[in-house]
Amino acid sequence: MILSALLTSVGINLGLCFIFVTLYSILRKQPGNIVVYAPRLVSGGKLQDDGEFNLERLLPNAGWVRRAWEPSDDEFISAAGLDAFVFIRIFVFSLKVFTFAGIVGTIFLLPINYTGTQLRDLPNKSLDSFSISNVNNGSHRLWIHFCAAYVFTGVVCILLYFEYKYIASKRIACFYSSKPEPHQFTVLVRGIPVPPERTCKDAVEQFFMEYHPSTYHSHSVVRRSSKLQILTTDAERLYKRLTQLKNKDNSPQRQRRDGFLGLFGHKVDMLDHYEKTLGDIADNVRIEQSFMAGKEVPAAFVSFKSRFGAAIALHLQEGVNPTHWITEQAPQPHDVYWPFFSVTFIRRWISKMVAYVACNAITILFLIPVALVQGLTHLDQLESMFPALRSILRLAVVSQVITGYLPILILQVFLSFVPALMIMLSSLQGYISWSQIQKSACTKVLWFTIWNIFFANVLSGSALYRLNYLLEPKEFPRVLAEAVPVQASFFMAYVVAFGWTNIASELFQLIPLFYNYVNRFFGGDCDDDFEAPTIPYHKEVPRILFFGLLGVTYFILAPLILPFLLVYFCVGYIIYRNQLLYVYVPKFETRGEFWPTVHNYTIFSLILMHIIVIGIFGLKKLPIASGLILPLSIATLLFNEYCQKRFFPIFQAYPVECLIKKDRQDQNNPNMSEFYDKLTKAYNDPALMPIKYSGRFRSRRTPLLSSESQNSVRESSSQDNLV
Amino acid sequence: MILSALLTSVGINLGLCFIFVTLYSILRKQPGNIVVYAPRLVSGGKLQDDGEFNLERLLPNAGWVRRAWEPSDDEFISAAGLDAFVFIRIFVFSLKVFTFAGIVGTIFLLPINYTGTQLRDLPNKSLDSFSISNVNNGSHRLWIHFCAAYVFTGVVCILLYFEYKYIASKRIACFYSSKPEPHQFTVLVRGIPVPPERTCKDAVEQFFMEYHPSTYHSHSVVRRSSKLQILTTDAERLYKRLTQLKNKDNSPQRQRRDGFLGLFGHKVDMLDHYEKTLGDIADNVRIEQSFMAGKEVPAAFVSFKSRFGAAIALHLQEGVNPTHWITEQAPQPHDVYWPFFSVTFIRRWISKMVAYVACNAITILFLIPVALVQGLTHLDQLESMFPALRSILRLAVVSQVITGYLPILILQVFLSFVPALMIMLSSLQGYISWSQIQKSACTKVLWFTIWNIFFANVLSGSALYRLNYLLEPKEFPRVLAEAVPVQASFFMAYVVAFGWTNIASELFQLIPLFYNYVNRFFGGDCDDDFEAPTIPYHKEVPRILFFGLLGVTYFILAPLILPFLLVYFCVGYIIYRNQLLYVYVPKFETRGEFWPTVHNYTIFSLILMHIIVIGIFGLKKLPIASGLILPLSIATLLFNEYCQKRFFPIFQAYPVECLIKKDRQDQNNPNMSEFYDKLTKAYNDPALMPIKYSGRFRSRRTPLLSSESQNSVRESSSQDNLV
Repeated sequence: MILSALLTSVGINLGLCFIFVTLYSILRKQPGNIVVYAPRLVSGGKLQDDGEFNLERLLPNAGWVRRAWEPSDDEFISAAGLDAFVFIRIFVFSLKVFTFAGIVGTIFLLPINYTGTQLRDLPNKSLDSFSISNVNNGSHRLWIHFCAAYVFTGVVCILLYFEYKYIASKRIACFYSSKPEPHQFTVLVRGIPVPPERTCKDAVEQFFMEYHPSTYHSHSVVRRSSKLQILTTDAERLYKRLTQLKNKDNSPQRQRRDGFLGLFGHKVDMLDHYEKTLGDIADNVRIEQSFMAGKEVPAAFVSFKSRFGAAIALHLQEGVNPTHWITEQAPQPHDVYWPFFSVTFIRRWISKMVAYVACNAITILFLIPVALVQGLTHLDQLESMFPALRSILRLAVVSQVITGYLPILILQVFLSFVPALMIMLSSLQGYISWSQIQKSACTKVLWFTIWNIFFANVLSGSALYRLNYLLEPKEFPRVLAEAVPVQASFFMAYVVAFGWTNIASELFQLIPLFYNYVNRFFGGDCDDDFEAPTIPYHKEVPRILFFGLLGVTYFILAPLILPFLLVYFCVGYIIYRNQLLYVYVPKFETRGEFWPTVHNYTIFSLILMHIIVIGIFGLKKLPIASGLILPLSIATLLFNEYCQKRFFPIFQAYPVECLIKKDRQDQNNPNMSEFYDKLTKAYNDPALMPIKYSGRFRSRRTPLLSSESQNSVRESSSQDNLV
Repeated sequence: MILSALLTSVGINLGLCFIFVTLYSILRKQPGNIVVYAPRLVSGGKLQDDGEFNLERLLPNAGWVRRAWEPSDDEFISAAGLDAFVFIRIFVFSLKVFTFAGIVGTIFLLPINYTGTQLRDLPNKSLDSFSISNVNNGSHRLWIHFCAAYVFTGVVCILLYFEYKYIASKRIACFYSSKPEPHQFTVLVRGIPVPPERTCKDAVEQFFMEYHPSTYHSHSVVRRSSKLQILTTDAERLYKRLTQLKNKDNSPQRQRRDGFLGLFGHKVDMLDHYEKTLGDIADNVRIEQSFMAGKEVPAAFVSFKSRFGAAIALHLQEGVNPTHWITEQAPQPHDVYWPFFSVTFIRRWISKMVAYVACNAITILFLIPVALVQGLTHLDQLESMFPALRSILRLAVVSQVITGYLPILILQVFLSFVPALMIMLSSLQGYISWSQIQKSACTKVLWFTIWNIFFANVLSGSALYRLNYLLEPKEFPRVLAEAVPVQASFFMAYVVAFGWTNIASELFQLIPLFYNYVNRFFGGDCDDDFEAPTIPYHKEVPRILFFGLLGVTYFILAPLILPFLLVYFCVGYIIYRNQLLYVYVPKFETRGEFWPTVHNYTIFSLILMHIIVIGIFGLKKLPIASGLILPLSIATLLFNEYCQKRFFPIFQAYPVECLIKKDRQDQNNPNMSEFYDKLTKAYNDPALMPIKYSGRFRSRRTPLLSSESQNSVRESSSQDNLV
């Protein structure tokens, strides 16, 4: 790629971003868009809408930047949660790393690369003249690159250490300041051996009364309720509509056609229609529930009187047979993933294996279609395949768009399906909570991205046949060293085209905005489905970390990529702070358990960088430098090993010191008896709760909705009032 | 190798074994040899020596076989401990496996191999005609071998499963029937953060009183005492002699020359001489001890009131910083390895790394000298190196001895140094008990044996240059398939020459017997150093398992090896039962923790067998069979994974169920208060105990020997009386 193509791309994307941001700063001030741009405030009930129109509303301004910037770390954590804070720390960490890398790269590496004469036959403005490929073979100037690799790795490791330490301390601090929560007192017990003539409930009761008599509090046995869940979800949705309709008594919306989108079909009285359907569902639910009482899964949520008691049950092997009475940390009650409580130890283990194999197969085989389609975007190949288009393809603009944009677009189309796919695989793996599923999917998407974006582009872009070499470990550094620098310009374009636009559109929220307008145009009564969105960590974290990987691997090879990355992380920092404070509602709180993934990934990036640099020095006829990188890799791995021992345990479980201190605090807490009452019912399957109705309905049938879902009804109706 | 060479070897070794066993059955009945052949009974004080001479003593008989055979499993466990039982189960397991393999091999595989015509140009009696190499390429008879591989793997896995289950159940049963032991109530705590103005003792006391108030019992802080240990060991040895001398008052041994072996030099009164030296040492010890009180290591043995309490402290992370307050299971008090309590977490970790690297380096580099020396034993190479010896080397007997014996002898000389070396490396790794050091050394010796006996012989014997191919994973099965069958006759000779003789000489105990005679000849007062020997598991287990590996890998290739192995395991079973009942005293009791190593090693053997078979089928032009072995390997690995989950946790820690039951038993035990008193002092460093003297000595100086060493003095003097 030549400089002008890159500049074209930068220009287009800068323009797009500018338009998005300007539009955002106007649109967010319109009252109708509040559900798009500040749904958190809506669902929290914090917004007062003055309703008056004034001119200031139509002028773009940067007040939102100030508001997103202002909150301190602690304010941010208390507003958005520790997970959101960790997410933001990825940007902070990357900014620190790439500011340093940018300075070193611009002052030392770029001039050396540019003054080299290795690639003499390049067009003058080719981006390759800024890459290490342009340094003469055997030149002693390469020792500057060598030193840069050492210094950079050192700086990254130091930053990683302090970041890990800081987040670990925040995690402990959050634990100390937290209110008593059911999941802190509860463990999930699986593989309960139920004697033939007894129920699971009795077995659990007897076991824990016998072996944890002083700390055992209560338990709820899990039941197989997937069919019921579908029914209850239907009932809940219907009940919400019903409540709303009754609130808006005699509004024209009571009469509606029963066809597509309420536009066609016969007019019916919605209240009667809903009541009838709800009645049918409630009957089904009752039949299912009575049927269900016997369908126990040999698993139970067992609650204890103290956090320490729960930790003891969690960490000690309970039964003589290690496949019985398996304990794991209970998730937050609303975080439990009910549909998949597989029955036995063996089935759970097999489904884990299957998901693992499927995930690997998808990750590896996905490469093939992507590589094929990517290969098409090489101009010469396109020309030979479509000779008729030759004249068009030779136009400068077309060729620049094709080489700069098309590969990225194709990648994006393919990639947009991946996070959902990985979530599906992770949920098959038998995780019991949404947070674990997301964490696992996050790792899967990470490896997927590395393999299918980094390696696929590096290796297929220039030569698919190199894959064979890749299987031979000895050839690995050489193959990478040949292929990676060649793709520098592609990844620069990738950062600009995909990275920049991506965060701008994240701010602009095009799809929710469009949906909101459509919704308002066709009548607002779909608002009852309104829920503030949650941030899909499994999609966003890999995306951001991948830009970090690009920065780390290309720092030595082509430092020209760094300024573009700095812009990305800088703008991303502000925008995601804004989104996390005003748009996304945390669905769960793992208290920073995503950070170890970030840490490991950064270590992986460093090692990958070392491997490439080893290959590069080999190609550049500087074998000594090549060999001397090896100790750096070993030191990095040892550093990682140390961090694993020093910090990782804090992210797995809370230490005795914290648990006991917290338990002692609770002893003076007057609300504990109330909390214990709540604890008894916290882990009842919502699908099996007695169904509650309100108003005149209660007289006719048994209650249908759980207190929890009633809460959400209350929330959503208050949202209606606000919007 | 031709059949006659093997038969020569079999003949020689059978003769040797017969002589050893006959001599043993005579010599063991001589009263003077009791310390060699039944030291356990001597140290247990169970032997009454009638002293009378009768003719029956000079006749060989097999009564010892009956006595070794008779005890049931439970009797054997109560007599020799669970570790010894597990050791014997290796033989039982191998016997089961190779009886099955022997039947299948003799009935199905041997005839097929022998009737093949692939190796037409072989001398008629070559052993290779019994190996798979002789089956014709592409022959459909190879499918019998294929089925044998599947059936054999299945049978081994089933046997492994039931053996693991049986030993796990024995482990739990032993725990239930055990008396309260200090190590069950104690954990070792390392990385104690000592505040600057306080002592480690205070820090431990405060921490456990605060966070484990209801279960904490007592603690002993570890001190840096390596110099003191040397002094105390000297003092103990001297004190033993002194006591003995005083017992034999006015015996001629009181006057002795002070030179070499008491034969040369001036005559001195030994009692005075010893007392003077002991006095000097005691002064040194006191100085060191007073100096030592401040030299605390940030580690302590912390005891709890119940096993459950200790387990809680063991399994839960204690402090906020995971590198502080690290807990691990305390070993039995006499099993503690005092010399190496490295100071900090980091130092311990680094020394672990260093030991790991050193061990790998030694394992890999050891191959070079062995391979070189082994290479020399190939006749043609010897002839070209020593042309003068050509005529001698061409003699049939010489050539047979050289090909049958010399390689094995060379291996043995090299290998005899290895276990001690590995023990040294393991003790550098920072393990805190002899049992852990032995377990770790056992694994090291295992890998060492596989690499330096199996791979070195397979690859260097025929071609050292093949090592290069070995580094390429794709070539691995092919290289092995070419090289392994060629070495079948070598390993047959190895089993016969080394295996058989080895167990016979184990029974005969040549070196202790020789030492005993020398000792008695030069006067018996060296007997005060007498201690019943302990079995060196790290040396014996790898040796026996290696024969198992040979059997598993050669089952398909050359089933002729199986009868020799069966003889080995059969005779070994009886002999080792005898040795464990009458010779070896258990130094520690890990309750069967060696079995997981045996299990993993057997799985490794199976996988290695599969890899070789894949290569063989490839070479034999049966690629379908080659591919179809792959699912078998995967199934084997999954089976192993399952066993790891199902049984391994039982060998790591006892479950809550057992702990609580055992604790409740103790509540009714009237001896518990006495036990708690003992517990307080159980983990005091023997080097730091107040020194105790007895008799007139006590009046002059402070006591010097601990009660434990006094016990051993008492034991050894009672042994004197018996011998």
